[in-house]
Amino acid sequence: MSTSNTSLPTYDDVAAAARRLQGVAHRTPVLTSRTMDDQLGARLFFKCENLQRIGAFKFRGAYNALSQFSAEQRQGGALAFSSGNHAQAVALAAQLLDMPALIVMPEDAPAAKMAATRGYGAQVVTYNRFTEDREAIARKLAAERGMTLIPPYNHPDVIAGQGTAAMELLQDHPDLDYLFVCVGGGGLLSGSLLAAQTLAPSCKVIGVEPEAGNDVQLSLRAGHIVKIDTPRTIADGAQTQAPGDLTFAIIAQQVSEVVTVSDEQLVSAMRFYAERMKIVVEPTGALSLAAAIDSNLPLKGKRVGIVISGGNVDLQRFSSLLAE
Amino acid sequence: MSTSNTSLPTYDDVAAAARRLQGVAHRTPVLTSRTMDDQLGARLFFKCENLQRIGAFKFRGAYNALSQFSAEQRQGGALAFSSGNHAQAVALAAQLLDMPALIVMPEDAPAAKMAATRGYGAQVVTYNRFTEDREAIARKLAAERGMTLIPPYNHPDVIAGQGTAAMELLQDHPDLDYLFVCVGGGGLLSGSLLAAQTLAPSCKVIGVEPEAGNDVQLSLRAGHIVKIDTPRTIADGAQTQAPGDLTFAIIAQQVSEVVTVSDEQLVSAMRFYAERMKIVVEPTGALSLAAAIDSNLPLKGKRVGIVISGGNVDLQRFSSLLAE
Repeated sequence: MSTSNTSLPTYDDVAAAARRLQGVAHRTPVLTSRTMDDQLGARLFFKCENLQRIGAFKFRGAYNALSQFSAEQRQGGALAFSSGNHAQAVALAAQLLDMPALIVMPEDAPAAKMAATRGYGAQVVTYNRFTEDREAIARKLAAERGMTLIPPYNHPDVIAGQGTAAMELLQDHPDLDYLFVCVGGGGLLSGSLLAAQTLAPSCKVIGVEPEAGNDVQLSLRAGHIVKIDTPRTIADGAQTQAPGDLTFAIIAQQVSEVVTVSDEQLVSAMRFYAERMKIVVEPTGALSLAAAIDSNLPLKGKRVGIVISGGNVDLQRFSSLLAE
Repeated sequence: MSTSNTSLPTYDDVAAAARRLQGVAHRTPVLTSRTMDDQLGARLFFKCENLQRIGAFKFRGAYNALSQFSAEQRQGGALAFSSGNHAQAVALAAQLLDMPALIVMPEDAPAAKMAATRGYGAQVVTYNRFTEDREAIARKLAAERGMTLIPPYNHPDVIAGQGTAAMELLQDHPDLDYLFVCVGGGGLLSGSLLAAQTLAPSCKVIGVEPEAGNDVQLSLRAGHIVKIDTPRTIADGAQTQAPGDLTFAIIAQQVSEVVTVSDEQLVSAMRFYAERMKIVVEPTGALSLAAAIDSNLPLKGKRVGIVISGGNVDLQRFSSLLAE
């Protein structure tokens, strides 16, 4: 899904998504931490999308997309390729909207993730990620079965849906000076930018990538989309090789800055979340706080929003990461 | 603090405590889980006191007590003996109210807990828990220094403060059929009973103890306070040997039932919280859910409140418990 000829979504699309999601997605809580406030000399507001349905913000975009299907599309159902949160997001959205869902996953994906996806009633088709092309498989299946492929980020309805998390945060706290948002393919960041541009135009929105996977930072510097090798990072939700053309267009226009953090900084932020805030945050979800702590942005005396994107991390892995 | 000649607190005391705590304690979020709802055939509402300041409900009672000190008492300050959440609760409340605090802790208490308590500005005095009597030490220090001893549960202001958690939950969800609350010394349970009696008189309030430490269950059966040996259980917040006379009086009058769960059931509930709800819950905090799952109470079709009392568990211990 690297190209698209669709027009860019706007704030109105985010607001429309929020109406569709009302009563369906959780309005997730905003937590605070005096300990971190004291450490940074700032006031932080944590938007907890790890407490969202399926454990990540991805449900917002998937549901917003699927709920706008035509009657014909609903009959055919939704198809996605993902081994991560987008798979479960599409599966759950399809279940709630009473349509079939098919998820293309690598055959070596964690059994728990396959089971969870099937648990939402989706069919799972596996492929060998070393020898087969998942996009080709997905397109073929979509054509054969009359299903609609929903990409994980480069789609206007997905972007608009993801923007509702920042929208809720900015409704609760309209006077934020900074907003930190993780970047994988850029769906969450571009949606957040649409929300912030209207609700808090003076708020600086900072995108955060893992050091090893700074495709968006490189793309911004180059002025066009740069594709990198699949990065080695514990932030599995940000292992994308390049932003999409829609997400990149919005990011390039509106983002204040994109910064990077190391895996060590992610682990440290995850530990803080577990020890002091009593929440489980996945590595990608810790990007935003890690950057607030470790980037040298002038946060002193400022009001800072931190979007926690998700909490889906295998408990064994969680334990071993934090034990290091 | 096994005896008291104070009169029992009432719902009005809980309501007054709520006013004192406004803007000071967090109004903690109420989370839901469709997965657990489906598993139990009920609707569950989780009151997340693990997300309270100091990571546990104990802050409510401590602050409510200290905020009512006379000018003279404030000058002397507050004293507590505790190696657990009550220590940090009194330390933080004293700091916020700008009075001295002294906490008597066993010399082998975890260094992190001592550091956290000192971090709130409290003085820590240690004792040898094998050779010395902490109550005697605490009384002596209180007399010498003109400090006011605040017991962890058997005090009307502490009980009233703890009741504000259930009060908030019942304000948000007045139509609960059941409310599950853990029992150590009975402060949280008795406060919850005061709240429920007025706000939801038909709600059945269920106390939950660890199997190994069923002093309240035994006391109810005997019709008087029964003291047991210090129980061996992972629920360190419920290792009390007996309820207090105030807490027991309220519990005996109003509780529907007190049930017990095993340590294995606690671990299983903790794992559910971490894996599916993305929150860190300490063993004692998992008592309420474990009982909802494993007691044979007729919860099908019912609306059920679950008070999560706290989240203060050492991460190493958390990991090793969940790895079993």
